[in-house]
Amino acid sequence: MSSEFALIERYFKRPARRATLGVGDDCALVGLSAGHELAISTDMLVAGTHFLPDVNPRTLGHKVLAVNLSDLAAMGAIPRYASLAAALPEADEAWIAEFAAGFFALADAHGVELIGGDTTRGPMNFCVTIFGETPMGMAVRRDGTCAGDDIWVSGTLGGAALGLAWLRGAADWLTPAQGRAAQALLETPTPRVPLGVALRGLASAMLDLSDGIGGDLAHIANASGLTARLEVDALPVFAALKSRPPRERRRFALAGGDDYELCFTAPKPKRDAVFAAGHAQGLSVVRVGEMLPRRHPSVAVLQVDSSGETIPEPFSGYQHF
Amino acid sequence: MSSEFALIERYFKRPARRATLGVGDDCALVGLSAGHELAISTDMLVAGTHFLPDVNPRTLGHKVLAVNLSDLAAMGAIPRYASLAAALPEADEAWIAEFAAGFFALADAHGVELIGGDTTRGPMNFCVTIFGETPMGMAVRRDGTCAGDDIWVSGTLGGAALGLAWLRGAADWLTPAQGRAAQALLETPTPRVPLGVALRGLASAMLDLSDGIGGDLAHIANASGLTARLEVDALPVFAALKSRPPRERRRFALAGGDDYELCFTAPKPKRDAVFAAGHAQGLSVVRVGEMLPRRHPSVAVLQVDSSGETIPEPFSGYQHF
Repeated sequence: MSSEFALIERYFKRPARRATLGVGDDCALVGLSAGHELAISTDMLVAGTHFLPDVNPRTLGHKVLAVNLSDLAAMGAIPRYASLAAALPEADEAWIAEFAAGFFALADAHGVELIGGDTTRGPMNFCVTIFGETPMGMAVRRDGTCAGDDIWVSGTLGGAALGLAWLRGAADWLTPAQGRAAQALLETPTPRVPLGVALRGLASAMLDLSDGIGGDLAHIANASGLTARLEVDALPVFAALKSRPPRERRRFALAGGDDYELCFTAPKPKRDAVFAAGHAQGLSVVRVGEMLPRRHPSVAVLQVDSSGETIPEPFSGYQHF
Repeated sequence: MSSEFALIERYFKRPARRATLGVGDDCALVGLSAGHELAISTDMLVAGTHFLPDVNPRTLGHKVLAVNLSDLAAMGAIPRYASLAAALPEADEAWIAEFAAGFFALADAHGVELIGGDTTRGPMNFCVTIFGETPMGMAVRRDGTCAGDDIWVSGTLGGAALGLAWLRGAADWLTPAQGRAAQALLETPTPRVPLGVALRGLASAMLDLSDGIGGDLAHIANASGLTARLEVDALPVFAALKSRPPRERRRFALAGGDDYELCFTAPKPKRDAVFAAGHAQGLSVVRVGEMLPRRHPSVAVLQVDSSGETIPEPFSGYQHF
């Protein structure tokens, strides 16, 4: 059993690069590029709620950072720093080494510097706070959309939730290769950071999809007092879901969660530029609906099928409580 | 059972003041005062490890912020923002309302704005990340001390650990009034923010005491490759401990933890100024030792008694693992 301090030193302390002062003091110290603002987000991931207790520690190290990078992507911010707090039931060095390897592989890929954190004994829990920079006034918020704007989604939806179903033995119609691909989307999501940055100046509102577009899109709609008309059969779904019955396909795409794709709105004249931004990242972007004036106060998202008919029992997002 | 979003809205969402964008988007957005750096710290508090599961939620709301404010104090930073992530076993609104009341009472007292966070279901866990500002280059780090510098402590030590012993029925020699006073130090510590700011330019190194000065002081000593000669009987102890046998008194003062007082070093010519800084805050500051060249590589802290004799079985700090 090593001491807390020795574990931190060995696996998480690296020399500060951009930061004035990194891990190891009471606080980290960082500056801010001239003309920029700091974008800050926090996510907490709990064993049993957000990941299976026997998850591979390397993929878990990736995921706890990925979900936070996804929040920066959703503002169009460039990642700079992160802090990591972890509660662990025991100080298992091999496990911590694997976790750190997964965490730093993704951190290094995005130029993220770990500047601080905390380690303690307790039921497994990881809390990452992430810091990015955006030019002053250029961050893409949730509240900038207008009636008539297109609604867009990057990548495909439903794969991560399908991966969870597969791990639980509830999707045995998948081939092993399809199951593994879905599991990879669940365990090692790719935060859409470059796309988010490319969409600054194009997207009028943006968020990342963590709880399913059926619920998440309501945040954009509510922030502007509009209704999102969502064409559910236009949603880009994970390949193996395309052949499933409509209701099953829609459930995964709308309410599965853990997609970490970007959902954004943009004025219609920006269509070509939006397609070009996706193409430049090698990533599909698909138009899935339109923002409308709100006619019924309680309807934030109107889910319609391919013939324009309202879906009678729409799927909303995953709720933590 | 309310939804996660409704709970966040009701108890934790307030209009942004200093921040460009506060709670409710993917990220918060903040700027930085000209000529300043951002000091950032994260602490995670877990039920059973850092607080008793049946703790009063109002005092817990105070404490999760207080321990983070204490880290800012230890850098001499002025508090600005905080984010709060919480895992809770259930969405008990009355409990959350009390927690929020305790959190915001302390936040408001220090001008701290809650800019973001996360709520999820899980074993009880709170993770606060705090943000403060210091003039560029003026933060008080752990590594600035020199041989010959005095070692100082603010307030008194051992009271919080005594409060924990009292709650556990292990200190029944206390009067009820003494027990309640000790419990208050445990549950609602006062972060020494104004003193920390006043010590900028005076203290050569500083940290806050969370795990007991016996262990924490080693961080200052190790950061500069020196040895701290600590006069353990000069340590200011909680009043009710003064009459206890030396070994018991020392154990509480050195290894009790949860003191959240400032421990700092300062050049000898600064003595009057250090006393004046404490006096201006109505807070005692006591000289408890001196930094020495390190003669033995493994001795970071040399604990001596009032006659200058080395204490044979020194107490070091609390270890989380």
